[in-house]
Amino acid sequence: MKIGIIGTGIVGRTLAAKLSLDGNDVLIGTRNVNETMAKGEPDGMGNPPFKEWQKQNQKVKLGTFAEAAKFGELILLATFGDVTKNAIDLAGKENFKNKVVVDTTNPLDFSKGVPPGFTATLGNSLGEQIQNYLPDSKVVKAFNSIGAHIMVNPKREEGDPDFFIAGNYDAAKKQISEIVTKWGWESVTDLGDISQAFWLEALAMIWINYGFKYNSWSQAFKLLKK
Amino acid sequence: MKIGIIGTGIVGRTLAAKLSLDGNDVLIGTRNVNETMAKGEPDGMGNPPFKEWQKQNQKVKLGTFAEAAKFGELILLATFGDVTKNAIDLAGKENFKNKVVVDTTNPLDFSKGVPPGFTATLGNSLGEQIQNYLPDSKVVKAFNSIGAHIMVNPKREEGDPDFFIAGNYDAAKKQISEIVTKWGWESVTDLGDISQAFWLEALAMIWINYGFKYNSWSQAFKLLKK
Repeated sequence: MKIGIIGTGIVGRTLAAKLSLDGNDVLIGTRNVNETMAKGEPDGMGNPPFKEWQKQNQKVKLGTFAEAAKFGELILLATFGDVTKNAIDLAGKENFKNKVVVDTTNPLDFSKGVPPGFTATLGNSLGEQIQNYLPDSKVVKAFNSIGAHIMVNPKREEGDPDFFIAGNYDAAKKQISEIVTKWGWESVTDLGDISQAFWLEALAMIWINYGFKYNSWSQAFKLLKK
Repeated sequence: MKIGIIGTGIVGRTLAAKLSLDGNDVLIGTRNVNETMAKGEPDGMGNPPFKEWQKQNQKVKLGTFAEAAKFGELILLATFGDVTKNAIDLAGKENFKNKVVVDTTNPLDFSKGVPPGFTATLGNSLGEQIQNYLPDSKVVKAFNSIGAHIMVNPKREEGDPDFFIAGNYDAAKKQISEIVTKWGWESVTDLGDISQAFWLEALAMIWINYGFKYNSWSQAFKLLKK
């Protein structure tokens, strides 16, 4: 299927590469195509410049946010959380209509350094904000409490983490569940409607705070069920 | 050692029984000793009346909140979260001075039924409220995101859950870690200072919401570290 990804950071790239390998047509969107292709240095987190990455992932097309959103039958949001709504505006809200939109973002504020601050409040998680902003879309909160490399390669030495998911539309959650089950996620844990996004964003904060405290980025949550 | 427990619910009883078995002197405190001993019916969650429980746990003494707090060199708070501060008032704030106080409570509002509402806000978790209310005590947030039976018997079929802990005082956290390690907790995960209590209270909400959604009460979180 045609998939549009909003954001060329490590999350967007990792999901784009995997979805492309799965046989999907993937267009990854950026704010400014020329700037993205002009970058010659790794980013602040040590990720290689986009053009280097694209050499290894030539089937993934690059375009604007609007081109990605228009292209995708399924759309993944993979920007920093503080600019997600702006990215949707640039992509054109009409291009999200009647589509499943996967929200991988977190309501983080890096303006005072790390660990980041948390900008969501109960009843107003970023997932809910996006669902409210795109009332004709089916928003699924997912992928937000794990590192990018684990998203597409979930098996851990210590066991299988849970793929936590929330959203108002069961068919949309099922679609995403089927994709990630093929990637090796043994346990998809549906927490309920989009209001549960608040707790998933909180869960991400445990992941992030643990990461900065212990300089560890390969942890993942498992909900032992018995 | 002498341990005082504030609250005769299932959490207080379960921890009291285990700490007593460990060889500690345990006094469990209640709002009104006569009323607690007079109850002849199971509570709303099906737990037997206190006097039945005490027949199986005769070494555990029953007293007032104040007697429990005065008695304990270590104190555990095990009330409903909305009455914890009131229980501390009844117990006498001076009786908590210079002691380690384990906060097992959650900021829940059952007034509108279940699942309960969540009353904490970022920077004002119940754990932080209690530490601020008892500035001369060493508050440790722990035990709040698991069911009572798992607190003292952590091994699960699917693996070992994590014992999450937060607080400002390393020696206090170490003391609690040593107690639960003897109970079989293989992995104690220290999230940092008492501000991290907010995220542990949020984690409890995932546990609670999952519990009500799936009528499941034996789940527990594991943080896969590799």
